[in-house]
Amino acid sequence: MRHVDVLIIGGGPAGISAAIWCKRLGIDCLLLEEQSQLGGQLFNIFNEIIDYPGMRTKNGIEMQREMVKHFVEMDCLYEVNTKVLFIDERSKTVKVKKQAKEQEICYTYLILATGSSQRKLGVPGEQQMIDRGEVYSASADGERLKGKMVALIGGGDRAFEGAHLLASKAKEVYLIHRSTHFKAREQYVEKVLSDPGIKVITDTEVTAIHGKHHVTSIDLKSKNSECENLSVDAVLIRLGIAPNVELIKEKVTTTQSGLIVINEVHQSSNPAIYAIGDACTTPLFSSISSSAGQGAIVAKQLSSMLNI
Amino acid sequence: MRHVDVLIIGGGPAGISAAIWCKRLGIDCLLLEEQSQLGGQLFNIFNEIIDYPGMRTKNGIEMQREMVKHFVEMDCLYEVNTKVLFIDERSKTVKVKKQAKEQEICYTYLILATGSSQRKLGVPGEQQMIDRGEVYSASADGERLKGKMVALIGGGDRAFEGAHLLASKAKEVYLIHRSTHFKAREQYVEKVLSDPGIKVITDTEVTAIHGKHHVTSIDLKSKNSECENLSVDAVLIRLGIAPNVELIKEKVTTTQSGLIVINEVHQSSNPAIYAIGDACTTPLFSSISSSAGQGAIVAKQLSSMLNI
Repeated sequence: MRHVDVLIIGGGPAGISAAIWCKRLGIDCLLLEEQSQLGGQLFNIFNEIIDYPGMRTKNGIEMQREMVKHFVEMDCLYEVNTKVLFIDERSKTVKVKKQAKEQEICYTYLILATGSSQRKLGVPGEQQMIDRGEVYSASADGERLKGKMVALIGGGDRAFEGAHLLASKAKEVYLIHRSTHFKAREQYVEKVLSDPGIKVITDTEVTAIHGKHHVTSIDLKSKNSECENLSVDAVLIRLGIAPNVELIKEKVTTTQSGLIVINEVHQSSNPAIYAIGDACTTPLFSSISSSAGQGAIVAKQLSSMLNI
Repeated sequence: MRHVDVLIIGGGPAGISAAIWCKRLGIDCLLLEEQSQLGGQLFNIFNEIIDYPGMRTKNGIEMQREMVKHFVEMDCLYEVNTKVLFIDERSKTVKVKKQAKEQEICYTYLILATGSSQRKLGVPGEQQMIDRGEVYSASADGERLKGKMVALIGGGDRAFEGAHLLASKAKEVYLIHRSTHFKAREQYVEKVLSDPGIKVITDTEVTAIHGKHHVTSIDLKSKNSECENLSVDAVLIRLGIAPNVELIKEKVTTTQSGLIVINEVHQSSNPAIYAIGDACTTPLFSSISSSAGQGAIVAKQLSSMLNI
């Protein structure tokens, strides 16, 4: 069975940084990425990146290109299109699948850099919509959504910010939230509630998304009324993000929202398992800088654990 | 009196990152740097920087240039040649001196990014040697030290690693340590002790460095004997680093080695004072990546404290 001293799961900025640092410190290391390319959430950044000191890029793709170039130049070992199916923390083994082939890899230390994903509604039609590529950014897709009927789902900052951004462009904007309590900051809520271009629908859940080639309507179910159908051209799901911890959540301590609990050197409740980036309890919002910094910290920690 | 919401002391990578992040988050912020240029310890990196994901530079100066370019493009407010004389944490005021002029600046939050410095011997002739520019890197200055008599002072990793690196180049290498106990890792110690090109002198202190235009000799005082003079051409002081905490050490909790004790959002024991980079208790060794990441974390924390 293949063995590596450090196995990294996830190839976003945190995982890339950890791999570069492992390489620099002479640690035998392998990074696994489920997608066909490294970069993780960098692919979701459509605006200029101005907050990674020393490097400004037009968008996430450009940052991805630079990071991957660095990673490849350093000869870091990695496998893309490789899905981790199972982590056996007792035997320190992970089972992975690449194309049709399954394989086991044994580790001394495991770094989880699995990131986070947008939360989903979990209703019929949602995954089909995503698979068709109907995933929009309120800030970058204003032109594409011009003159359309747009529904935003959620009650937090991103839902309200998105509704506000699109109000001047779309034909009609619906902001749909399942309760009457909004998590979004007050100034966003005030702006949206006072905007005649936005219809706020509260105490209402989306129960289905319809459309064959593109979204045509959604089903809404409000607390005290019948289900009704609303014609829309686009749905933006803004339910916030959830850490990608499916593989590990029963095996290490996590918070109520699923974040892996770590100590100051990013070690989880299992001494052989570390976590960095958006999947773990790091202070406040995430950033490329802090993910990169966490990669450095964990690699240095493991270098001293491995006595390199 | 001038007031800023966030005052940053120190313009190395941690301070630069904090300032860029404050600017990005719309925080009223000013950075103070004692030297004539921003960059801090980047000026001491003579080798290629390969561990800042996405960006490889030939040396610290090149990294400094890129970071300062970014900082200046972002229109971050700063003052160089500005020494902080005193921090009055009760009135939240710092007294600074720029050229001959003294000024007071009032802050809501203070970020200490004062970094660390090489520990010094504190003996006659040492500062003159440094001022003459006789500061060598064992890895980068091998050619300059070829055929010379070189003394390394210290008992840790860097002293032993340096002695090993120079042994094949210098005419003679002395490793001088004040005790018989070495902090350096075992494999370094073994290598050095078995190297015929290195003379290890223990239980001995350096009491003076002589030389007018360049180092010519050092005075040594061993525990049980008279002072003696040793002819050398170069002295490399490798006593480790000490955090730059003179301004604050009585005012916030510090560790025995002087590091500012912080919580997970980099807040010190004084709720209005934060610390990032090499002056604070962050895990393990420092790095540009982790300093940059800390700048992001503290700025985000202060943005929420300031309710921006």
